[in-house]
Amino acid sequence: MDNRAIGFFDSGLGGLTCIPHLLREFPHERVVYFGDTARTPYGSKDPSTIRKFAAEMADFLIEEKNVKMVVIACNTVSAVALEYLRDRHPATPFLGIVSPASHAAAKTCTPENRIGVIGTKATIQSGAYNKKVTGLAPSLKVYSMACPALVPLIEEGIVDSDIMDMTIEHYMKPFVSANEIDTLVLGCTHYPFIRRNIERLYPQLRIIDPSEEILLSVADALDRHGLQAGEGGTDHVFYASDLSENFVNIINIIFSEAQHPIKFDVLDLESHPVRKERKERTL
Amino acid sequence: MDNRAIGFFDSGLGGLTCIPHLLREFPHERVVYFGDTARTPYGSKDPSTIRKFAAEMADFLIEEKNVKMVVIACNTVSAVALEYLRDRHPATPFLGIVSPASHAAAKTCTPENRIGVIGTKATIQSGAYNKKVTGLAPSLKVYSMACPALVPLIEEGIVDSDIMDMTIEHYMKPFVSANEIDTLVLGCTHYPFIRRNIERLYPQLRIIDPSEEILLSVADALDRHGLQAGEGGTDHVFYASDLSENFVNIINIIFSEAQHPIKFDVLDLESHPVRKERKERTL
Repeated sequence: MDNRAIGFFDSGLGGLTCIPHLLREFPHERVVYFGDTARTPYGSKDPSTIRKFAAEMADFLIEEKNVKMVVIACNTVSAVALEYLRDRHPATPFLGIVSPASHAAAKTCTPENRIGVIGTKATIQSGAYNKKVTGLAPSLKVYSMACPALVPLIEEGIVDSDIMDMTIEHYMKPFVSANEIDTLVLGCTHYPFIRRNIERLYPQLRIIDPSEEILLSVADALDRHGLQAGEGGTDHVFYASDLSENFVNIINIIFSEAQHPIKFDVLDLESHPVRKERKERTL
Repeated sequence: MDNRAIGFFDSGLGGLTCIPHLLREFPHERVVYFGDTARTPYGSKDPSTIRKFAAEMADFLIEEKNVKMVVIACNTVSAVALEYLRDRHPATPFLGIVSPASHAAAKTCTPENRIGVIGTKATIQSGAYNKKVTGLAPSLKVYSMACPALVPLIEEGIVDSDIMDMTIEHYMKPFVSANEIDTLVLGCTHYPFIRRNIERLYPQLRIIDPSEEILLSVADALDRHGLQAGEGGTDHVFYASDLSENFVNIINIIFSEAQHPIKFDVLDLESHPVRKERKERTL
């Protein structure tokens, strides 16, 4: 039993979509979330930059908020920085989103299947999905494709639109046909918002959504480490580094069913004391 | 005569497009450029975040690089942070991009004209263009429209494409017809890349490009303050906060004609000494 909160972080707000499922399954758990909305998006930036930003969020959640585990609700950070963060905080369980989705793909696919992964530039260039899936099942074939224009269109609400369908086809048409893809991993937490477009355009594809798979992974980790919360927890707390227009609205919509009260705050990580201390320590 | 460099900064790389014109006109001038590629884009973020990031870049250029003037090669920062930066550094001339473009619009338009401005969310919400143009010529009519999906598509190279044309029309069609726009200000340094698309789709519009107008303003400021450089300057230096894939390529393409050697470097402003000192001073 451990009533400390579970830490979640993401480059922005996409990772929030994982949380309601978790709270339905584990109503006693509390969440401390950090979305780096001031520096979002990460997906086209250099791995060194992504690791630095991710470390700041992990330091904050662990050193300041004393979370019992950290869930990286972002494919880009999971693909590029997971091992780095585990080395930095060896006493804290870290869950990424690449591994559970890769397990799901490896478990349900046969060597006849041809698995496609779509994601940000950083996710795809890292090769994380390819390595993980073929590490689990070497006979599987994995193809991957960066689709950087999809996230900004989703964030702009251009979803039920010919523009979105054409942009999906811009990336997917040559990719799916040349590689005869039959299984598609949605390798970015924004892509569930266009799942219906993809299903309509490519009805033959079986879709694997990592944000569904990560919940099984969280449940397993709570169980394995004996970390489940009992009754009587306090608030969920949501931090963002930029007071973006939609921050409070999105949180209120997504968490309308939450049992614990919800607090939110804007925090400038760059001038936060945790980071200053750490800097002094490493100087 | 002043052989110090001219400082330029931008939220990313868009502002680079201003510089070759400047160097053709003033071949002795040297440039120190900072592009905040680690935290780009700024256009959908809160004004307080934009002002904070802009101040870090201005502090670096002035306090560390001793530039003789600062050109804000970014509509979003010019719209949201120019007055704030002038208050912070009263001894340094600051040139924004909103004012010269507004002068051009006010000079060439009559009360019969209907001026449209397109830009990022932050630029449009600031009302900076409307205030400036109607301040210069109160009888002019100015309409404005945020087009946040255009920049990511341009950065992804989706320009000569039906996707771009449809996205332009998604924003512009209702905007142009409802307001009977006849003059269009390209209120973001990325938009010159889609000028041809706009001209093809809306041949009736007269287009004002602020990145052309700002050069006149730089020339005027060099002259007015007696700041022109003589012969014998040293290198141009380009800093970015993230070593993005295209940084060096873009610089080499854009500055193929430069007379001075070009250096570039990646700099983490957040942990830079100038900022630490400033923080200690203001504590």
